Amino acid sequence: MSDKVHVVWQHYDVTSSDRAAIKGQKPCVIWLTGLSGSGKSTVGGHLDSYLHSQGYHSYILDGDNVRHGLNKDLTFSEEDRIENIRRVGEASKLMADAGLILITAFISPFRADRAMVRELFEPGQFIEVFVNAPLEVCEQRDVKGLYKKARAGEIKDFTGISSPYEAPDAAEIQVNTGDQTVEESVETIIEYLNANGYLKKP
Amino acid sequence: MSDKVHVVWQHYDVTSSDRAAIKGQKPCVIWLTGLSGSGKSTVGGHLDSYLHSQGYHSYILDGDNVRHGLNKDLTFSEEDRIENIRRVGEASKLMADAGLILITAFISPFRADRAMVRELFEPGQFIEVFVNAPLEVCEQRDVKGLYKKARAGEIKDFTGISSPYEAPDAAEIQVNTGDQTVEESVETIIEYLNANGYLKKP
Repeated sequence: MSDKVHVVWQHYDVTSSDRAAIKGQKPCVIWLTGLSGSGKSTVGGHLDSYLHSQGYHSYILDGDNVRHGLNKDLTFSEEDRIENIRRVGEASKLMADAGLILITAFISPFRADRAMVRELFEPGQFIEVFVNAPLEVCEQRDVKGLYKKARAGEIKDFTGISSPYEAPDAAEIQVNTGDQTVEESVETIIEYLNANGYLKKP
Repeated sequence: MSDKVHVVWQHYDVTSSDRAAIKGQKPCVIWLTGLSGSGKSTVGGHLDSYLHSQGYHSYILDGDNVRHGLNKDLTFSEEDRIENIRRVGEASKLMADAGLILITAFISPFRADRAMVRELFEPGQFIEVFVNAPLEVCEQRDVKGLYKKARAGEIKDFTGISSPYEAPDAAEIQVNTGDQTVEESVETIIEYLNANGYLKKP
């Protein structure tokens, strides 16, 4: 057959760094944590779009593509919220192993859960970003109308209202989305990635 | 600051095809199914290595990187085996959405489970590969010593011995690893990918 494949067989196990090398980047997970309405998805989406425009290979995991798929069997019980974060962590690990720069946008309010995810990664692979906006600002924005429902008691255990948000005490990056523009927040993250060798294209 | 990032802000939602385009490929999942010892991991590993050597962006999910991570909470009960395959399907979908050519190597013995996974994908995104070797051949190889244990009754519900393997009736590709070499099997898959426009590099 003329379209027969002529394969030169040099089988080897493709390593994580092989996968990263053809993408010109150092894979990692950029873990955005913060209150509902703090701007995680907006910052994450802009970051993803900027990285893509520069030829980097990124992807974003958030409630939209996880809660209706991989984690659709999970409720909002305490146990299932932990499992939600654990699976996102494990999926992120696989995607970083595949060579991607993975962005996640989940409230992930508890230090212990974020620490559990950090433990999955090699040092330097997990970059925690505290998306910090005052509760008042988030509540005033109330993009999804959730704070209103939480105040009315229609949502139980709502982070910041009836359930605590445990701010990171040693996040790699903090962005102050109450004061900064989205663009400034994204630039802060990109400067960190540049300064620490994650982005390797000329 | 001299190392200040000067970002040209043209925010847009990065689509699945944007992510695929910078990788020069049509993302898909190549779902290898077959008996224990039929050669799924070997064929998958060689395929992955060949694609990588040609500059394509592939990744492989198998028991090694899934059972100890994403699915480490699952047992081998019937219910958990279904959930194992469901999560692998959902993780594959995310990775294909990220633009990758995703290879999976799981026995996945039941038609209904494979059909459930196929349903997650757009037409043409899910490529089922029947890795077909006679039971006698697989049992004789018995690389992991599992058939011996199954015959001795030490493993319950072992596919091919005490639990059925439901062969695909309409797999996109079949490779006969009882007769073919690993190289021939991989070439069969690559020819399919070439003929159907999945591999787009010049």
